[in-house]
Amino acid sequence: MRMYDVIMKKRQGGTLTPEEIRYFVEGYTKGEIPDYQVSALMMAIWFRKMTPEETLELTLAMRDSGDVLSLDAIRGIKVDKHSTGGVGDKTSLALTPMVAACGVPVAKMSGRGLGHTGGTIDKLESFPGFSTSISTQQFIDNVNRIGIAIMGQTADLAPADKKLYALRDVTATVDNMSLIASSIMSKKLAAGADAIVLDVKTGSGAFMKAEEDSFALAREMLSIGRMAGRQMAAVVSDMDQPLGRAVGNALEVREAIETLMGKGPDDFTELCMTLGTQMLLLGQVAQTESEARAKLEESITSGSALRKLAEFVEAQGGDPAAACDPSLLVTAPLVTEIPAPCDGYVRKIACDEIGICSLMLGGGRENKESEIDLSVGMVLHKKVGDAVKKGDSLATMYASDAAKAEAATKRFIAAYEIGEEKVPARKLIRGIL
Amino acid sequence: MRMYDVIMKKRQGGTLTPEEIRYFVEGYTKGEIPDYQVSALMMAIWFRKMTPEETLELTLAMRDSGDVLSLDAIRGIKVDKHSTGGVGDKTSLALTPMVAACGVPVAKMSGRGLGHTGGTIDKLESFPGFSTSISTQQFIDNVNRIGIAIMGQTADLAPADKKLYALRDVTATVDNMSLIASSIMSKKLAAGADAIVLDVKTGSGAFMKAEEDSFALAREMLSIGRMAGRQMAAVVSDMDQPLGRAVGNALEVREAIETLMGKGPDDFTELCMTLGTQMLLLGQVAQTESEARAKLEESITSGSALRKLAEFVEAQGGDPAAACDPSLLVTAPLVTEIPAPCDGYVRKIACDEIGICSLMLGGGRENKESEIDLSVGMVLHKKVGDAVKKGDSLATMYASDAAKAEAATKRFIAAYEIGEEKVPARKLIRGIL
Repeated sequence: MRMYDVIMKKRQGGTLTPEEIRYFVEGYTKGEIPDYQVSALMMAIWFRKMTPEETLELTLAMRDSGDVLSLDAIRGIKVDKHSTGGVGDKTSLALTPMVAACGVPVAKMSGRGLGHTGGTIDKLESFPGFSTSISTQQFIDNVNRIGIAIMGQTADLAPADKKLYALRDVTATVDNMSLIASSIMSKKLAAGADAIVLDVKTGSGAFMKAEEDSFALAREMLSIGRMAGRQMAAVVSDMDQPLGRAVGNALEVREAIETLMGKGPDDFTELCMTLGTQMLLLGQVAQTESEARAKLEESITSGSALRKLAEFVEAQGGDPAAACDPSLLVTAPLVTEIPAPCDGYVRKIACDEIGICSLMLGGGRENKESEIDLSVGMVLHKKVGDAVKKGDSLATMYASDAAKAEAATKRFIAAYEIGEEKVPARKLIRGIL
Repeated sequence: MRMYDVIMKKRQGGTLTPEEIRYFVEGYTKGEIPDYQVSALMMAIWFRKMTPEETLELTLAMRDSGDVLSLDAIRGIKVDKHSTGGVGDKTSLALTPMVAACGVPVAKMSGRGLGHTGGTIDKLESFPGFSTSISTQQFIDNVNRIGIAIMGQTADLAPADKKLYALRDVTATVDNMSLIASSIMSKKLAAGADAIVLDVKTGSGAFMKAEEDSFALAREMLSIGRMAGRQMAAVVSDMDQPLGRAVGNALEVREAIETLMGKGPDDFTELCMTLGTQMLLLGQVAQTESEARAKLEESITSGSALRKLAEFVEAQGGDPAAACDPSLLVTAPLVTEIPAPCDGYVRKIACDEIGICSLMLGGGRENKESEIDLSVGMVLHKKVGDAVKKGDSLATMYASDAAKAEAATKRFIAAYEIGEEKVPARKLIRGIL
């Protein structure tokens, strides 16, 4: 087989065979096929697209390029959750203790943040002493013992995807449905869960800006997962404004804890309920949506979800007291209010801009080597549809540097579009597939 | 400027500015832009195509990537000729002495052969002692003194094209009209002639198999040349069977000499007349086609073209006696006849296959390092439209190795399609643009 022929076939609109896909993925991972041939193929795929069968095969070949985790040693149906990422997305922090408390074993791999979206691991490290660098054995033991564990992605999970994504990122070949879906799903399948619930974000703070693209991506991933023998569900949720109110690592942990105390923002609570319902159904600990929802509500009112969070934090070396008393989390020295520039109604919030404000404060990574300031960020008081008066606080800003705070404040205000007419609040859940 | 943005713009169907084209050509030549970004761009160009303005700019940027020859020190209008290459294409060998004898100065850069098509330099080296490794000064002096000189392409003529072509060759991005035309024209423009006559081949032995593609390529090159301020003409000629009768280096030299003696094959003689007419017109040594043709015919009947060949060969270190007596050229030890397998008419000759037969005998290069056996090849006795009887000689084969001769004979016979019905002879000149 020759890489030239594979490129030519795809360029001419042909369908690659499983053998051809395995050949280029394996050859590229081993360094036997050069970057310049693979980038030409990626561009040809961008133009010609891939069939569902090609997409599945690409996903499986990338999954098989590195370690494939077996979670067989964990009792029960393992249900994973994946979010395509957004601003203020602290869902895993609240959702995983909730479903674990309901009896669904959670064995989750998470990543760090890059750019304007945060990562679950960074947020969890707000708990003093907490670590996701645990062995696979400890990971499995923890899930069997307390029902929940989260570990950092090992270097050898789908290395083909890592190499391919880095190449696509510099050759303008990222935004193809099949390539995006196979990239996500190769890692999810390698992580070994029996069932996967996808939270596909849509809007200005999401990777997919247009709603129809988000639905298409969700369908593509569902198709891959099902063809690979997994139980699947997907929720398409709004990311045209930050999720909840808190943006920034420790601030988001605090909001997650408040949510487990029953005092969380409505939209964020609703997303946890919606995703949790799908997880409970796939995990077969509930038969109907209403039963699932009742169990999740009970996990909050009874305090079992919050206790599960404390157990989980303690099991991975963190201080469990902070899980019940968020005042023990790290706090920023400079706290200021961001004033509304005029009267009116919030029409729109440029969601990615809010993420960038957090980045400017030091709360995210510009590149892989950046150090993160876990304490900084914003807590929004006004969201789309809210009435504001000039001088009202749009948000409270938490910073550790006055110059950075000033620059971020300016950018934050510019991200808000305030109009004279009343605007309806945004609908959070756009669809369940 | 970022290469990423250039790729993205072309991928989305945009038109690249002159600055963007210069940026990537210069950056790539210097090694500042990596192969994998350029191959992605080439694939995007393959899908989106280039406008005439983009194509011109690419040509000029590649021309300017290395040495640009000035032929100003040569008196008169310098007319270059370029063939897109084919099997048995010894045109330069006969044509350049003819036009030089008519007063058009010939200052020509030529290449070596690769694959199934031969190169002018290899053929010329059939003259014992002949060399194309001459200095630019000697090159210019020779043209001023005797009206003709041919030198090998220097390493620094359009290095960007060399690098880009090598990349396209392994990434399935060769066959785009703009990229092919700019590749050829960048070298032609760097070679400094005032006027250029193109011989664009069409058919199974040519780079362009389909006639409409050959016309399109001719038009694309004419457009580039004219926009770059050159006088241009193009001839589209048949390459669906070998040109003339001889295929193989010394055998083709012999046929060129015979043509200058007035004893050449009709088709080859006609091609020299047609191209020569265009060269004489552009060189302004004739005002009408009939005047040009009469001068070219006179160059043969008077013997002036043959004498010009001898002068030229001598001026570059070769034995001038061989120019008038082809029996002094190198000959192969094994001479055999290839018998027709049945009665009928030659319907078709797989032209590229005949080139490969010559390659198998040792007459061409499999790769850049191959040594060439100048003596081997075939002289065809039957061409498309000819009647044959079983056992008639289709061709005489000249070889230096019996095993190679046997394998090449088999393949040669298989390249002939002989049918029962009478077939018209092929038309050589398909168009003049």
